[in-house]
Formats: sequence, structure tokens, C-alpha cells
Amino acid sequence: MAKKKNALYAQSGGVTAVINASACGVIETARKHKDKIGKVYAARNGIVGALMEELIDTGKDSATNIAALRYTPSGAFGSARYKLKGLEDNDREYERLIAVFKAHNIGYFFYNGGGDSADTCFKISRLSETLGYPVQAIHVPKTIDNDLPITDCCPGFGSVAKYIATSTLEASLDVRAMFRTSTKVFVLEVMGRHAGWIAAASGLLVDHDIPMVILFPEVTFDKDKFLARVNANVKKFGYCTVVVSEGVKLPDGKFLAEQGTVDAFGHVHLGGAAPVIADMVNKAYGHKLHWAVANYLQRSARHLASATDVKQAYEVGKAAVQFALKGFNSVMPTIDRVSDKPYKYKIGMAKLEDVANVEKFMPKDFISKDGFGITEKCRRYILPLIKGEDYPQYKDGLPKYVTLKNVAVPKKLPAFKL
Amino acid sequence: MAKKKNALYAQSGGVTAVINASACGVIETARKHKDKIGKVYAARNGIVGALMEELIDTGKDSATNIAALRYTPSGAFGSARYKLKGLEDNDREYERLIAVFKAHNIGYFFYNGGGDSADTCFKISRLSETLGYPVQAIHVPKTIDNDLPITDCCPGFGSVAKYIATSTLEASLDVRAMFRTSTKVFVLEVMGRHAGWIAAASGLLVDHDIPMVILFPEVTFDKDKFLARVNANVKKFGYCTVVVSEGVKLPDGKFLAEQGTVDAFGHVHLGGAAPVIADMVNKAYGHKLHWAVANYLQRSARHLASATDVKQAYEVGKAAVQFALKGFNSVMPTIDRVSDKPYKYKIGMAKLEDVANVEKFMPKDFISKDGFGITEKCRRYILPLIKGEDYPQYKDGLPKYVTLKNVAVPKKLPAFKL
Repeated sequence: MAKKKNALYAQSGGVTAVINASACGVIETARKHKDKIGKVYAARNGIVGALMEELIDTGKDSATNIAALRYTPSGAFGSARYKLKGLEDNDREYERLIAVFKAHNIGYFFYNGGGDSADTCFKISRLSETLGYPVQAIHVPKTIDNDLPITDCCPGFGSVAKYIATSTLEASLDVRAMFRTSTKVFVLEVMGRHAGWIAAASGLLVDHDIPMVILFPEVTFDKDKFLARVNANVKKFGYCTVVVSEGVKLPDGKFLAEQGTVDAFGHVHLGGAAPVIADMVNKAYGHKLHWAVANYLQRSARHLASATDVKQAYEVGKAAVQFALKGFNSVMPTIDRVSDKPYKYKIGMAKLEDVANVEKFMPKDFISKDGFGITEKCRRYILPLIKGEDYPQYKDGLPKYVTLKNVAVPKKLPAFKL
Repeated sequence: MAKKKNALYAQSGGVTAVINASACGVIETARKHKDKIGKVYAARNGIVGALMEELIDTGKDSATNIAALRYTPSGAFGSARYKLKGLEDNDREYERLIAVFKAHNIGYFFYNGGGDSADTCFKISRLSETLGYPVQAIHVPKTIDNDLPITDCCPGFGSVAKYIATSTLEASLDVRAMFRTSTKVFVLEVMGRHAGWIAAASGLLVDHDIPMVILFPEVTFDKDKFLARVNANVKKFGYCTVVVSEGVKLPDGKFLAEQGTVDAFGHVHLGGAAPVIADMVNKAYGHKLHWAVANYLQRSARHLASATDVKQAYEVGKAAVQFALKGFNSVMPTIDRVSDKPYKYKIGMAKLEDVANVEKFMPKDFISKDGFGITEKCRRYILPLIKGEDYPQYKDGLPKYVTLKNVAVPKKLPAFKL
């Protein structure tokens, strides 16, 4: 086996508009260090591909294709929702991973994901200690939920925030033009099961004079107070925009989205808080209304990515490789804010033991006292993250996103059953 | 009263990402002909403002503000869903309009709307004949539904088409990355009560290898055939995207959106076909799925407008004024396609009597034989309409949309009750 070790990159969890920018940062940086890093492999469908020995040789894709990852949303190698159990519960999976790593001479593992993935990456980073196989595991932060600890923000969030703030503005202007004879209330449902970061982005419109009510998962839903506020806005301004997090809960702890009519598939995922809210407002006041559910549109909207977010996504990918080359294991690059205005940050480093399974919530003083908006502090935090545009190229009116060749690495091991 | 006549511009029906570009074309062109056109007024909230004598003096807004209309979605003066009855049924409204026109010396009326509005504009264009008040009424075409006759396309459609095609591409790439362990079917609901033009835009992705099923309002929904097709895609490709028009109907003539659980407000508007479809697929096969309802997001998405659409919207506004200056009445500028590739068109003219209350449907040979996709002919038609990007400026990460001063013209008449 060669002295030089190969690298394995894998994407994990829900994909984002900029996770491929991180992949681009990892691969382009690794390619610049051919003296130390041999092949750069990617796992097909995240950790599942690593277990199944479904590896991709990213070296078979041109520099042009790899560069295009920076402008391409979604996960170019496939992602997975799959969490490794603890070593004590499931040594079979860890032994398999080591077998795959050994068979393909993998010494560097870059795992691009959120909180659950950081835990998986942490477990893998301990394989050298626990199972005697030397591997440097570096976590590359990614999550639209913006809930990783230590890092000031998470790549993926800024672009969703920009998309939701822009879409809320555009749809609100629409309602503002229509309310005289038609729609008076517009309800937009956004992602966010546990934290209201994405909904909070709509609060950036404070300078745009949009009468708005934001419903955060952090604030227990108070139907009467909510309805009164919406109606007050309609009376005063003629219309009202409501932004509702999918994770908003009623006093009994149940999701709003489960209350209505969509619970047939509410088991597998949320979605459907908007029609419940719309129905509620309509029944109470008879206002004509429209509702939208952004769902995947928001996290895949690379056409409206934040330039700050894209840049940071690339940088954490690049830093991960640099950390590996310096010999680090079990760490994650972080984005450390230096100042709000002008916005300055530097790339820092966190230990995975401090990251794994720690969820960062929105600070209490980011939500306004009435519970329906954001504070100036929150605005100052989010604003720099949505700054700048970073458009993809277009061909025939559509964004030119790359689909990689994703050439498979020949398997060397017997099949594995998940 | 001055010899020079004033102009009145009004927006009607659902607003679009580019209706203000038409307003910009009207106002900027009128301002260049101060020898013939005096003040340029706009009606607040469309024809309702004309009846209520709620007029805006657009002359009070700077050239910079008016120019910014080109980049601003929604209706800058407010729009209305309000259709005048026939003269024989409701001469009170026509007499009021004439009173308002007389009081403000209005000789030119520019009405920016779709099919219903063309009918209103047609009725107003006959006021000189029927009630002896000389006014030149020109209709400026606008509708995301793309259903006006004679004109090859309608300003507003191209931008929605670009948004929906792009969003479908982005969300489909998302599902493609997730299907191995998670979401296998993604359902996107798009606008279109009677015609599938907007849904058809997703068919442009044919070059992008996205397994997709499109449900058109023109094709009666066949549940078994639909489910079988979705499942075949999931089996073959691992995932499937479904694009469903809000206007899809069941064999009994009822809307899909009415079948489910959202009919409490289905009376006022459609919306909710996506959760019905999602529920259906989930119950039949148990596939994990996600759904989105684009609703107003699609028609207000100026951030992703088609440059072709913006240009044409401006040009029909400009042409309307030019027609008026040449002495025409009761006409509408049209977009006449000269060739597909390269795309060439010229601005033509249609008589309002040929436009009013005529709905143009999607040609039958635009939908593929299986009913789930578009034909090459359809693709050739839509493709040029989404071409080109025309980005607004941004400030602090958000599009810089203009809110006009909209200074009211002092009223001269007694109040009017609608």
C-alpha cells in the first residue's frame, strides 16, 4: 500500500444550496496537496456508501466539473439520513468501515453534515484509539437549521435565510397590491422543527413596512393572541403576512401541522402548518387568504444563494483539508464572528467532542417580547449572513448545474447488508 | 379645461413579477410626449380607484422611482379583482367613470390586465360611442395564465415559467441526493386553474434527466395510471418529482384540491392539490415524500424574472401609449412571434372585441400522449420565454424594490359607493 493516504468525503443529512461548495473546497484543496493526499474519494449517499463500499473517484471528474460544484445545489454524491450507533451497540458497522478504509487506504475522512453527523464523525475519529485503525476524521459543518454549537453560523443557513426573506418580501408586496378586493392574509410555511432561525429571516423586512406575524417553534402557539394580532394588522394596514415555522407547537405539545388534516403523512415529516393557520384565520374572520409551503424549494434555491454563505461553505471545506494536513483529528472548522458591522469573521476550530449532540437554540433575546418578531440583536446577527449575490450561470433560461460523472471505484470487499 | 388630455393607468387582476415593468413602459413613454399627454394618473387599486376617484399623480414620483418599477414585482398602485357589468345592467358605474374622467380631463385609459380586464377595457373603449364621452382605451396585456388570445404570449408568464422550471430543477436535485435513505417523491403544486401553461414549464427539464410526472388541468386525473407512473419512476430511478396544477380535476369534475381536507377555504381559492397527491402516493406505496405549494411565491418572484418577459412587459406598455398617440382606441398591443430559433418577435395590435372574454387554451399537441409531460412543440414554444436573467439590485442582501410615493390627486367629486 502506498505511503500516501487517500481521502474520503461524504455528505450527510438534508442537503443545502451550498453543501457542494464545501465539497468543492475539500476536493480542490486536496488536489493541491498530491504529495500528501492520494485519491480523493466520495461516498455515494453519505455514510451508507461508505458502509456499502460504494465509493466514487472524484479524480475522474474534471477541474471544471469540480469548480461547478460551487454553483450547484443539493448533494452531488448523494446524501443519507443514517446515524451510526455507539460502538458498544453496533461494532459490526465500525468494523465494516475500517475494512472499507483499509481496503481503499483511506487515512482522511471528511464528513459534511449537521449535529447528528458530527456525532457519527466523532465516533469515526475515535477509531484509531478504539479499534486501532489510524484515521483523521474532520467534520465539515452544514445545516440550514443553524443549530451547531461553537461556530457562529452554519453553511446552508444564510442562503435559506436570503431566500425566505426575499420570498416573504415579494409575496407581501403581492398581497399589498391585492388586499382591497381580494387576498388579505398570506401565510408562508418555512422549515425549522426545533429552532426558528429560518422564520426569523423574514424579520429582516422590518425596514420594508410589511405588517407581519412570525410564529416560532420556541414560542408556544397562543391562538387568541395570534388571531387578534393578525386581525389588528388587517384592520390597520389592510393585509398581513404570516410566517410560520413547521415546528410550531400547541400548548398540549402537539405540532400545529398535526392538528389539521395532513397527519396521514405527518408521521414521516412535518409540513402543513400553513393550511392549518390559514383555515384558522379564515374561520375566525372570513378574510380571503392564500398560503404557500416552501419546503425543499427553500433549501435548494441555489439561484438565490447568499454570497457570504457560499464563500463560508467553501472555506470550511478548504479548512477541513488544511486541518487534516496539519495532523488534526476529531475537529471541525468553525466560523468565528469578529464583528457585525463591518461583518468580519475568521475560520476557527472546534473539538468534535464539544460539537457532537449539542444543539444550539436561538437565544431568547432574539425573539421580540410579544413573541411575533425578532429583536434588533437578531437582525444584526442574521443580516451579514444573507449579504451578497452569487449567481450560477444560465443556459437556455435555466441554471447550469453540474451532474458529476461519479465514476465508481471497483469494490474489493464482499457485500455488506445494512 | 386644457386641450391636452391626461392619461389614467390602472392595474387589474392578480399581479405579476413584471406588471410594473409595463407600468414603467406606459409612464416613461407618456412622459416623453408632454405635448400630447398631460398628467399621467394611476388608479389606486385598479378600476376600484377609478370609480372611487382615488387617483395617484405619477408625476410626483421621480424618474428614478419610475425606472425602478421595471425591477419591482407586484402592483405598485394596487390592483383589484373587479369586473364591470354590461352597460345595460349597471349604467351607474359607467356614468361614474365618465364623471371621474371628465373631472380629471382623462382622455387616455390604459388598463393592464388579463381576460376579464380586457372585457372591462373594451366596455370603457365604447364609452365615446355609447355615452358620448371621448376616451381612448388601450389594454395592456398581463397574465401569468398566458391565456389571452391573439398575442403569442402574455407578459408575466415567462417569469413564472422560469421560476417554476428552476425551482423544480433545484428541488428535484435535492430529492435525487436524498432518496437512498429518505424522500423518494416530491410534489410541487403550481398555479393554473384552467390551463396547464405553468405546469408545462417544468417539462423544460427534459434535458436534465429528472424523472417527472406533470398533472395538467387539461387532462382528467386518472389515479391508477398516475400512481403506477410515479411508482415506476421510483423503482427505476429511485425517486420522482410530481408537478401538479392547482386546477387538476377528477373524473367527477371536482378539483383535486377539494377532495382532501382543505375545502374549508377551497371556496375562495384553490390550493391544496399537493397534499392530496402526497397523501395518495403515501397511502398507495408508503414512499416518504415532501410537498410544496408555491402559490404567490411563483408570481411575485421578480428576483428570478425572465429577461425576455421583462422586456416584453415594458414594450407592450410603451406600445400602448404609442397606439394612443396615433389615435387608436379599443386595441391591445400583442407579441407576435416571428421565429422560435433564433427567437424573434414584433409588437402587433389586436382589436379588443377579438380579445375580450376569449380564453386561449394550451394546444392539445403541447401535451404528450401519455398526458404526463410536454411535447417538443411545447418546449420550443416556452423555451424562449424564460430566456435571460434580469436581476434587481440588492441592498443589505435583499432586492431593492421601490415603493412609490403615490401622491393622491385631490378629489373633485362626491363620494361613490361601490
